[in-house]
Amino acid sequence: MITLVIYDIPDDSLRQRVAKLLKLKGLKRIQKSAFAGPLTSSQRSDVVAGLAKLIKGEEANIQIYPLTQASFNQRVVLGVELTYEEEEVLV
Amino acid sequence: MITLVIYDIPDDSLRQRVAKLLKLKGLKRIQKSAFAGPLTSSQRSDVVAGLAKLIKGEEANIQIYPLTQASFNQRVVLGVELTYEEEEVLV
Repeated sequence: MITLVIYDIPDDSLRQRVAKLLKLKGLKRIQKSAFAGPLTSSQRSDVVAGLAKLIKGEEANIQIYPLTQASFNQRVVLGVELTYEEEEVLV
Repeated sequence: MITLVIYDIPDDSLRQRVAKLLKLKGLKRIQKSAFAGPLTSSQRSDVVAGLAKLIKGEEANIQIYPLTQASFNQRVVLGVELTYEEEEVLV
C-alpha cells in the first residue's frame, strides 16, 4: 500500500527533521509538507513510531494515511510542480 | 468516498481563497493546508474544476485523493490539534 504522510509543523528545524526521517524511510516528497511512497505495514509502523518519538511534546500535527493503489492512481494533481531543494539542503 | 485535498500555495491570498472554496464545498480543515470530507464523484469533479479555475497560471500545487472509508479509518494522527482560526478569519 501507498503511505501518504502530511504534516503541519511550525518550527523549521523540527519540520526539517521530520522531512529527513521520511526521506530516509524511502518516501518521496510530493509537496512541501507531504511525502508518499509504498511501504509494507511493518515499515509503516516503523515510520509512525519514528515520527511519534521525534515530535513528542512538540507543536506538530502529522497524519499518516494508508492508500490503496487505486486511490493513489486516481489522484488529481493541479498546478505546477514546486521545488523544495532549498529546504532539503538545509536539513 | 472521502476526498482528501492537500495544497502547497506560497501566496497568502490565493491560499486563503482555496481554503474558502474547500470549506464552501463542505470539506473540513484537517491541517493548515489540508481538507477532507465525504463527496460524491460529481461533487469531487466540481471541486477539482473550481480549484483548477482558481489557481490557473498561479504558483500552486494541489493534490486531490479519493480515499476509501477503510483508508480514512486507518489513518494515524500524531501530535496536537493545531488551530487555524486566524487564517480563516482573514479570508
